[in-house]
Amino acid sequence: MEIRKIDKQISLKRSIDSGTEEQRSAVKAIITDVRKQGDGALLAYTEKFDGARLKGLTVDQAEVEAAYADLDGELVSIIKEAAVNIRLFHEKQLHPSWMTSDESGTMLGQKVTPLDAVGVYVPGGTAAYPSSVLMNVVPAKVAGVQRIVMVSPPDATGKLPAAVLVAAKEAGVEEIYKVGGAQAVAALAYGTESIRQVDKIVGPGNIYVALAKREVFGDVDIDMIAGPSEITILADDSAFPDEIAADLLSQAEHDPRACSILVTTSQALAEAVSLEVEKQLELLPRKEIAAQAIKEFGIIYVADNIDEAIDTVNQLAPEHLEILTENGIELLGKIRHAGAIFIGRFSPEPVGDYFAGPNHVLPTNGTARFSSPLNVEDFQKKSSIIYYSEKKLTENAEKIAAFARLEGLEAHARAVEARFHKK
Amino acid sequence: MEIRKIDKQISLKRSIDSGTEEQRSAVKAIITDVRKQGDGALLAYTEKFDGARLKGLTVDQAEVEAAYADLDGELVSIIKEAAVNIRLFHEKQLHPSWMTSDESGTMLGQKVTPLDAVGVYVPGGTAAYPSSVLMNVVPAKVAGVQRIVMVSPPDATGKLPAAVLVAAKEAGVEEIYKVGGAQAVAALAYGTESIRQVDKIVGPGNIYVALAKREVFGDVDIDMIAGPSEITILADDSAFPDEIAADLLSQAEHDPRACSILVTTSQALAEAVSLEVEKQLELLPRKEIAAQAIKEFGIIYVADNIDEAIDTVNQLAPEHLEILTENGIELLGKIRHAGAIFIGRFSPEPVGDYFAGPNHVLPTNGTARFSSPLNVEDFQKKSSIIYYSEKKLTENAEKIAAFARLEGLEAHARAVEARFHKK
Repeated sequence: MEIRKIDKQISLKRSIDSGTEEQRSAVKAIITDVRKQGDGALLAYTEKFDGARLKGLTVDQAEVEAAYADLDGELVSIIKEAAVNIRLFHEKQLHPSWMTSDESGTMLGQKVTPLDAVGVYVPGGTAAYPSSVLMNVVPAKVAGVQRIVMVSPPDATGKLPAAVLVAAKEAGVEEIYKVGGAQAVAALAYGTESIRQVDKIVGPGNIYVALAKREVFGDVDIDMIAGPSEITILADDSAFPDEIAADLLSQAEHDPRACSILVTTSQALAEAVSLEVEKQLELLPRKEIAAQAIKEFGIIYVADNIDEAIDTVNQLAPEHLEILTENGIELLGKIRHAGAIFIGRFSPEPVGDYFAGPNHVLPTNGTARFSSPLNVEDFQKKSSIIYYSEKKLTENAEKIAAFARLEGLEAHARAVEARFHKK
Repeated sequence: MEIRKIDKQISLKRSIDSGTEEQRSAVKAIITDVRKQGDGALLAYTEKFDGARLKGLTVDQAEVEAAYADLDGELVSIIKEAAVNIRLFHEKQLHPSWMTSDESGTMLGQKVTPLDAVGVYVPGGTAAYPSSVLMNVVPAKVAGVQRIVMVSPPDATGKLPAAVLVAAKEAGVEEIYKVGGAQAVAALAYGTESIRQVDKIVGPGNIYVALAKREVFGDVDIDMIAGPSEITILADDSAFPDEIAADLLSQAEHDPRACSILVTTSQALAEAVSLEVEKQLELLPRKEIAAQAIKEFGIIYVADNIDEAIDTVNQLAPEHLEILTENGIELLGKIRHAGAIFIGRFSPEPVGDYFAGPNHVLPTNGTARFSSPLNVEDFQKKSSIIYYSEKKLTENAEKIAAFARLEGLEAHARAVEARFHKK
């Protein structure tokens, strides 16, 4: 891996893939088609893109039960335990509605309400992603969303992976459809005969799914469009090079555009990690992907001191940050921008991907400067409550009317004054 | 106003103005220019669009002091009182960072951090909008944002309105620039010699401002793009027609595309309100705007009973909802979707626009189904904290590795296992 001194301005912003003109118009055509033809279009696209000739889109109870039989019992119980951990963590995020009252009889507050219906997209392809099911569904469930709809493209035999169905059941999904791609997003946004529309669509997908989510945004809400995964590791000479190398590679294996960075105060550690990465890389099944990511986006920065190193981390605003220094927990207060912060050598990043409880849907591409991990509040919204008493309005009517007139809005002033005409 | 029975599917979705092709390319050209030329471009556009030849962009302390002298003392104290009310309400929205710990020594939590820098756009034009300054700045200030930058286009003499400068000072802004339009948004997003870049841009503006915000989104965060204002009033025969008419017109005067709706269980009230609207309309200074809005988007729905009426309100998901029924507060639990809910006849909507404390930046266009009023959390973000103890990882390493392998991610499994090679 390349070793560098820290430049003045660190930035690793990579553009989010916004697709080709062909991809964008294909997505628009699919959405139009689904809005016109409904289920017929969904079935036709599923045959065309997924190679599956389905009679219906719905996953029935028998298929879910079969999934439990198909999946190794040990894995079923790991998924169950992960679901419990994720639920417990997200339950801590709940905030109640609140109200203040004063002696005049006036009440002000905020009412928290869950979204009515949420759609969760789960990608298909060669691997199954049960962790994605848990991480997207559980917060919605904890938020109190009544209707959670999962969509995922079937394989050519018309099936969804057993692990995905088990995770869906454990997370509490009761409505699952075998449909993927832009057509699934269109169905969730606008509804068809068998799929009622939802208010928000979350979950990762390929470029067609991402473009479709962008296209329907506004009519429904969407989660962030994620860029490639990133890790930044902040380490001093107390850290073990083999552990750092393994952690850097665990990001790199995701995607040739994944980004693995070490920021360290130790030149010796930098050199040792660089060697370790080359060594471990050779032994990985996904070594081609990981090697390309390390070559293009892997960097080791050597800082003069810990403050310079921390400043670099804040400039990167990484999706995942590992702190592998002595007294790592004491550095927490100086970290301003990171999606998830893993402290100490027994908190390797995969702990957070699958199991510990915090969400693995995190802000990428430097957006941790202003965005948060997926959380319960992403599935709720607030309404302000204003109950003014007669006494309170009487005391303040002139001021409110004067403020309205200052902004040139006479009818606003008169709406306030209308309350007192009858006295 | 038109009186209607309730249709099966109520929907008043109006498309958000997405601009013409010319407007979009003009905005892109301005952004490119500001990124290349910096302050020079800002000064040139300010001369071109606002007619002001400025020497510098910064509003200095003397100008702010002059604003206090220029503005009526009564209005200064109303602005001060409104700022206090808004601050007190938003302080209730603060949630602390939190942490859980277990007996193994493991800690999980969420760290809340304010954004570093926020830009607030304040529209110019014929009127001054001090309320917009307060509503956008105060939540950022309460959130703990260190750097709040205000931009607003000057008049031809190079000045900003006194009320806007007073509101900025009272809200706690210490950095103000005389620049508006797409050029101001570009400066905030990418920085120039005199304006350092920010992390998020909020505040309303014309179509050029809205298009520029869309364009820079992703590089910085933005608030929602607001549609025209709306009010829905839910009333039974206990309500006064003149008050309802005044409230409907207070929305209508905003914009020819503003939307004023009454949903009532009383045919007699419907008819009385319809007459009152015509009567009061004649007396309004902005009657042409209000008349057009009432004609195109004003509707009175008559419901068979209160449940049908409430169902209609939930389908509309209005920006502002007034409840003018007997025991209005008891209906709160049935209202699922509304930006702000005003209960009782002494809570006319302008109370919330200027003074009570809750934010007047609210979800429009039916997006109250999934969006919230502007609030303190819009200016903060969260980082997950994961600190696993050796004991905890030892107990769970095999499960985490198995989960990673189920998803085909071998390097993830090895990152966990690397912790135990040295034992």
